Amino acid sequence: MKSVKVSLKNNPYKILIGTNLINSLGKILEEINPGTDAYIISNPLIKNKYGKALSNALAHEGFSVKFKLVADTEKSKSLGCAASVIQDITRYDKKRRIFIIALGGGVVGDLAGFVASIYKRGIPYIQVPTTLLAQVDSSIGGKTGVDLSQGKNLLGAFYQPRLVLSEINFLKSLDTRQIRAGLAEIIKYALIKDPVLFNYLQKHYREILALKTAPLEYVITRCSAIKAKIVELDEREEKGIRTILNFGHTIGHAIETAGGYSFYNHGEAVALGLLVESRISEKSGLLKPGISEKIESLVKATGLPTKIRKEISLEKIIQAHYRDKKFIGKENRLVLIRNIGKAEVKKNIPLEIIKSALKERITGQG
Amino acid sequence: MKSVKVSLKNNPYKILIGTNLINSLGKILEEINPGTDAYIISNPLIKNKYGKALSNALAHEGFSVKFKLVADTEKSKSLGCAASVIQDITRYDKKRRIFIIALGGGVVGDLAGFVASIYKRGIPYIQVPTTLLAQVDSSIGGKTGVDLSQGKNLLGAFYQPRLVLSEINFLKSLDTRQIRAGLAEIIKYALIKDPVLFNYLQKHYREILALKTAPLEYVITRCSAIKAKIVELDEREEKGIRTILNFGHTIGHAIETAGGYSFYNHGEAVALGLLVESRISEKSGLLKPGISEKIESLVKATGLPTKIRKEISLEKIIQAHYRDKKFIGKENRLVLIRNIGKAEVKKNIPLEIIKSALKERITGQG
Repeated sequence: MKSVKVSLKNNPYKILIGTNLINSLGKILEEINPGTDAYIISNPLIKNKYGKALSNALAHEGFSVKFKLVADTEKSKSLGCAASVIQDITRYDKKRRIFIIALGGGVVGDLAGFVASIYKRGIPYIQVPTTLLAQVDSSIGGKTGVDLSQGKNLLGAFYQPRLVLSEINFLKSLDTRQIRAGLAEIIKYALIKDPVLFNYLQKHYREILALKTAPLEYVITRCSAIKAKIVELDEREEKGIRTILNFGHTIGHAIETAGGYSFYNHGEAVALGLLVESRISEKSGLLKPGISEKIESLVKATGLPTKIRKEISLEKIIQAHYRDKKFIGKENRLVLIRNIGKAEVKKNIPLEIIKSALKERITGQG
Repeated sequence: MKSVKVSLKNNPYKILIGTNLINSLGKILEEINPGTDAYIISNPLIKNKYGKALSNALAHEGFSVKFKLVADTEKSKSLGCAASVIQDITRYDKKRRIFIIALGGGVVGDLAGFVASIYKRGIPYIQVPTTLLAQVDSSIGGKTGVDLSQGKNLLGAFYQPRLVLSEINFLKSLDTRQIRAGLAEIIKYALIKDPVLFNYLQKHYREILALKTAPLEYVITRCSAIKAKIVELDEREEKGIRTILNFGHTIGHAIETAGGYSFYNHGEAVALGLLVESRISEKSGLLKPGISEKIESLVKATGLPTKIRKEISLEKIIQAHYRDKKFIGKENRLVLIRNIGKAEVKKNIPLEIIKSALKERITGQG
């Protein structure tokens, strides 16, 4: 088992990464003492697979357990769904010391964290992410949220979990498309902070796709440590440090939004975002020529998309980009890279550069 | 003008107390720099009275201004109302740097703070409280929230404002019942922390009821300083320090709930709560005899209620008490006093003592 500390002054917590951790969860929670009554938010598929094991591990240490299932779709990240979960909690919450466990991917984690942040002005919660994407990214750092029709994550809070438990065995039942989605975020970490990880991925991506335990544990631990460090320095994204985690995401989100969320999953959109933003870095004179090709080779090798489907027009992407919530005042902001492992926030990128980098990626417009 | 600092490490802010402050709000905000676009949440009555002056003061310094009015009732503290305010903000929020101003009493302040806390994971907000109750209590300390049908303030966050501006001229148009409600909270501060304030109130309560500027400024400043100090020591009510601010409130809330919120306003219910909890302190052997009579004399003199109406039964109050969110696990908790100015949290108060102290207060059961 690997352990990564998130050393926040007011809310320090650990990220545990390894195999067969679920069976020890009861014992681990006894030490953290988040409460006595576990309210587990999950989806039907995940509960079916792991609910029993988790229940047993908790009940064995004397925790009461109640499951709340939400649909396994982005639609569950709504204020309506949050309200219905909270109504359910109030019915369960009779003279109890409730804490929440998020057992699922990013949707469940974001929703559960948001509910935990606002119920009774905050109750403890635990992240037990079940996808590679959630293990390396969304479960860490306390960004919680739900969507509005006007945009994703428009409601939310910074609210840290008491523990993140990344069980590698969970990943063994994911399909390749989901593993690839996680790989996109992992490549992002390499690009913003870790050239060694980039080299490792070039050599070992096949083993990750083949779900080998050791390389999975290595990359999850490495990404967790990178994210922990960044979150420690800038918990609430106020200092422009945490912002670099958005590399690939500004354009990625715009592509997702422009496509009505029907063509790409989040990781795939981020992969496209990474490629576009690398090229913007190059076209802005920040990144020396040749490197964005290396990045594209790796993305392509993993099986992630490298071209934007022609159904998604340049105009729509640009429109969605201008509605992005990172758009502050009238100036746009993008995270760009100077080299592999070196990212920085840049303002007022000329629209022409953004358009031209996007055009290259749109099938038939390149 | 008086100024009280709330010295929180991550979110320090000032409370400004005085007359004719509104005209300087634009200038004051320029220094704090919360954004460029003011979204003012208020109610129709208050906007009618002060909207123009506030708008002008802000526009003069170049801020854009938009008002959002909500009904002046506790019903506005709902998730539904929060959602509709947020929908409205998203329509206004095009390439802007929005911050929220809460212009109103406790309902507006709690709602506006909650909206600010969850919109885009937190945007700045300013409290401009217009009632005495809100000036001495709810506008300070970052407790935000909305109600659920299951109980008050069940949803919320700890989220600090960037500034509290207590304009004493606002109080001049309040009716006596509203001033009394504020006085109940002011008496509470005296009871938990400040015997000098208690003596002052005994001598000067008539001037406060007569809305004299100097005594109002004195008590608001004193209460703000007490609350600031407590919030500094225990921002998120985790250390049992902030809890003492609930003196009078546990029983007060139970009385409000049991009466379906139709007999007493919040301050009146707190006044009754103070009396009951003082007597519980005495009956528990903590407070020496004679003091609760002094407290009752002051409460009575101000015109606040000292008897619980017979429509509200003992059974209903006890039931509501057991549903209180401060009920942790199976043990009840109450703030009791040892003397005027000395409060502490006590657990497992025998139900018989609570019942007997309540019975004395219920008309016809004393």
